[in-house]
Amino acid sequence: MARIVMKFGGTSMAGIERIRSVAERVKREVDAGNQVMVVVSAMAGETDRLVGFCREASTLYDPREYDVVVSAGEQITSGLLAIALQAIGVPARSWLGWQLPIQTSGTHSKAQIDTIDTEALAASLDGGSVAVIPGFQGVASGARVSTLGRGGSDTSAVAVAAAIKAERCDIYTDVDGVYTTDPRIVPRARKLEKVTYEEMLELASVGAKVLQTRSVSLAMKEKVRVQVLSSFDDKPGTLIVGDDEIEDTTMESHLITGIAYAKNEAKITLTQVPDRPGAVASIFAPLADAAINVDMIIQNIAHSTGSTDVTFTVPSADLARSLDVLEKGQEAIGYKDLVHDTKVAKISIVGVGMRTNAGVASTMFKVLGERGINIQAIATSEIKVSVLIEEDYTELAVRVLHTAYGLDAEEETV
Amino acid sequence: MARIVMKFGGTSMAGIERIRSVAERVKREVDAGNQVMVVVSAMAGETDRLVGFCREASTLYDPREYDVVVSAGEQITSGLLAIALQAIGVPARSWLGWQLPIQTSGTHSKAQIDTIDTEALAASLDGGSVAVIPGFQGVASGARVSTLGRGGSDTSAVAVAAAIKAERCDIYTDVDGVYTTDPRIVPRARKLEKVTYEEMLELASVGAKVLQTRSVSLAMKEKVRVQVLSSFDDKPGTLIVGDDEIEDTTMESHLITGIAYAKNEAKITLTQVPDRPGAVASIFAPLADAAINVDMIIQNIAHSTGSTDVTFTVPSADLARSLDVLEKGQEAIGYKDLVHDTKVAKISIVGVGMRTNAGVASTMFKVLGERGINIQAIATSEIKVSVLIEEDYTELAVRVLHTAYGLDAEEETV
Repeated sequence: MARIVMKFGGTSMAGIERIRSVAERVKREVDAGNQVMVVVSAMAGETDRLVGFCREASTLYDPREYDVVVSAGEQITSGLLAIALQAIGVPARSWLGWQLPIQTSGTHSKAQIDTIDTEALAASLDGGSVAVIPGFQGVASGARVSTLGRGGSDTSAVAVAAAIKAERCDIYTDVDGVYTTDPRIVPRARKLEKVTYEEMLELASVGAKVLQTRSVSLAMKEKVRVQVLSSFDDKPGTLIVGDDEIEDTTMESHLITGIAYAKNEAKITLTQVPDRPGAVASIFAPLADAAINVDMIIQNIAHSTGSTDVTFTVPSADLARSLDVLEKGQEAIGYKDLVHDTKVAKISIVGVGMRTNAGVASTMFKVLGERGINIQAIATSEIKVSVLIEEDYTELAVRVLHTAYGLDAEEETV
Repeated sequence: MARIVMKFGGTSMAGIERIRSVAERVKREVDAGNQVMVVVSAMAGETDRLVGFCREASTLYDPREYDVVVSAGEQITSGLLAIALQAIGVPARSWLGWQLPIQTSGTHSKAQIDTIDTEALAASLDGGSVAVIPGFQGVASGARVSTLGRGGSDTSAVAVAAAIKAERCDIYTDVDGVYTTDPRIVPRARKLEKVTYEEMLELASVGAKVLQTRSVSLAMKEKVRVQVLSSFDDKPGTLIVGDDEIEDTTMESHLITGIAYAKNEAKITLTQVPDRPGAVASIFAPLADAAINVDMIIQNIAHSTGSTDVTFTVPSADLARSLDVLEKGQEAIGYKDLVHDTKVAKISIVGVGMRTNAGVASTMFKVLGERGINIQAIATSEIKVSVLIEEDYTELAVRVLHTAYGLDAEEETV
C-alpha cells in the first residue's frame, strides 16, 4: 500500500461537475489500494476575485488580512471535494492549514513552509480516510493564517509528499505533461516521459508554465518523485525525477531535452558606462531594491574610451519601473544614453546531456545564423543556453532548433 | 471608555464600497473613545452560493464539510473589513472562530455557542485594535470548523457582547429599527424607541424579520442591550431592553407595542377525531418527528357524537409534507376528513401592557368584527394575541388594529 499525493489545479476544480470527476479519479487510486492525500487549488478565477477585493479595499493591504481573505478559495474547494468523495462512498475529510498544521515562516502572502505535522494526517490515512488539503495555505506564528504566494498549491503538494514520504506526487493540470517545446509552435513536439528536476527548473524559468519553479526546487531538494499529467484524460504524463533515474537513457538519447521561449522580456542598454569598479553595482543594486528581476546581463570589454555598454533584460511588466529607477540613477551610474527594446524574445535550449557535449551551443548559433536570425545576447548555465533575438523570429527559431536537435516526433501531436 | 459590538449584515457588506462605509461608521465609534468589536456577515448572496455548491455536490452533504465551505463567506468579509479599517488609519485585525476561539457544541451547521475566550480579544482591544469577528462561525470539538445555522451572525454578535460584557450590541440592518407594524401597509407606522426582549421575541416569531429569534432569546438571557439601526442612515434605531427599562413609560403609553402579520401559514383541519385520551398526541407526534413546526392549535369541546374537530396551522412550505404525514396516519388517528386552506393569515397584537389590561383582546375581536372580518382561530400568550383570518383581509385588519390601539403616528413615515 502506497501513499500518494494528488494535486488538482483551479481548472480541475472549476464547478461541481469537475470536482465530481476529480472525486472519481481519486476513487480509482483509493480502489487501487493507495492511501491518498489530495491537494486542491481554488476554483479557477476565485483567487483573482479575492485578490481583487483586497486591492480594491486598499492598495496597501495588510498581508495578514489578505491571507485570511484569499485562503478562503481553497478552503471552499477542499470542503466540496470531501463532500463529493463521500457522495461516492469514499471516506474523506478536509484538513485546513491550521488544522494539520502546516507551519510557515517568512512574509505573509509569500510564506515558506517550515514543517508539516503528519501525525494526525497519518492516523487519518491509516483509518482509511482520504485527506483533502487546501493548497497555498498554512499557519504562521501567532496562529495567523498564511499563504504561500500565487501558484503555491504545487509547493503545498510537494511539501506534503515530502513530509509524509509519499511514493509519488501527481500534479494534475490542463496540459498532459512536459513537452520538448510548445506544441502550438511545433506540432511535432514530443511529450517527455521523464525529465530531471534541473531540466524542469530551467524549462520553467524560461516560460514552460507547467509547474511553479519553487515546487520543482523543493521536489529536487526533498527527492519527491513528481508526475505531471492531465486532469482531462487518462494518458501517462511526464515524470520529474533525479539524474540517476535517467542517466542510462541519456547516453544514446538526445543532448537537448527541450526548447523554451519567453516573449515577455524587455531589453535595456546603458551606453558609455564608466569602466570602473562599482559601476555595475550602481546599476543593479537599485533595481534589486525595487524587486525587479534582472535576467540576462551582457557586458563586453571596455572601449578604448574607458567606458562600456551594459545590456540586460527585465520582465516587460517591470520595464516602466526599471526605466524610472535608472533615470533617477543616471548621475550616480554615469551612463550616457538609456535605450530599451520590448520587441525581443529569449530562446533557450535545455538538457542535462549538454554537460558532456561541448558542441551543443555552437550548433544553436550556427542554425540560427543560417536562417538569418541575429543573436543579440547570450547567456549560459550548465544545462541551458539562452539567446536573445528579435521577437518576430521566435517561432522560426524554435522550429529550426527543434529539428536541429533531433526532437521532432514522427507524427504530429494531436 | 465603553466596549461595544457592532454587527453588519450581508447587505451592508455587499462589495468594497459598502465595506468602506462600514469602516467609516466603525471609525466614528472608535473616535468617540469606544473599544469596538465588529461582527460581520458574508456578502449578500455569498452564503447562498456556497450552500448551493454543497447541495450540488451531494444532497446528503457532511455537515462538518458544509461548515468548512460556508464559513468562508464571513472569513472573506472579516479580512476585507480589517483591511478597509487599516486603510483609514484604524488599527484592526480579524479573529476567526478558531482563533478566539468561539467554542461550540451540538450539531454541525446548527451549532450552539458554548464559550467565547475573551482573553486575547480583550488584550487586543486594550492594545487599541478593532476586532473584526466573522459571524456565524465557531470551532467544535476536535478543532473542526462549525457554523451556527442561517442568520447566526446576530447570535454571534450578542454572544460576543455577553462574553466581553459590552455596553451595547448594535445590529445594523437594512431597516432603521423596529416599527409598530409594517410601514408598507400602514404608512403611519411609528418606529419604536424601545421594545422589550419578550415583545421583540413575539414580534419576531410572527413575521417581523428584523432580528433572528435566537439572538433575542440570548440577549434576554444574558441581559445584552441590543440596538437595531440602519447601516444606511444616521438616525437612532430601536433599543431592545429588559422590562425594567421601560416600565415607567408603559403606564401612560400604549397597551400594544406592535401589530405583526404572517401570510405564509396554512390551516389544516381534521374532522371527527375520536374524543379519547391520546388522540391529539397521535396527530402531533408524527408531525414533530417530521420536524414540522405546528403553530396555532384549536380543539373545541367534543360533539355529542363523541368526536371533535382539530384545527392547526403549519408553515405553508411544510403543508405538502404535513398532509403526507397525516394521510399516512389516518388509521392511527381515526379522523374522517382532512381539510386544508392556504388562504389564511395570522394577525398578532403584541405588548407587555397587555398583562395588566384584560380588555385588550376583546377590543381586537370587536374591531375586526365591525369590519366583517371573521376570526377562524385564536391563540394567546401572556403578551400576544394572534388570530387567524382570511388572507385577503390581512392589510385591512392590520390597519384597523393599528388605529384602534392608538399606534398611528401624526405623520406618515417617509
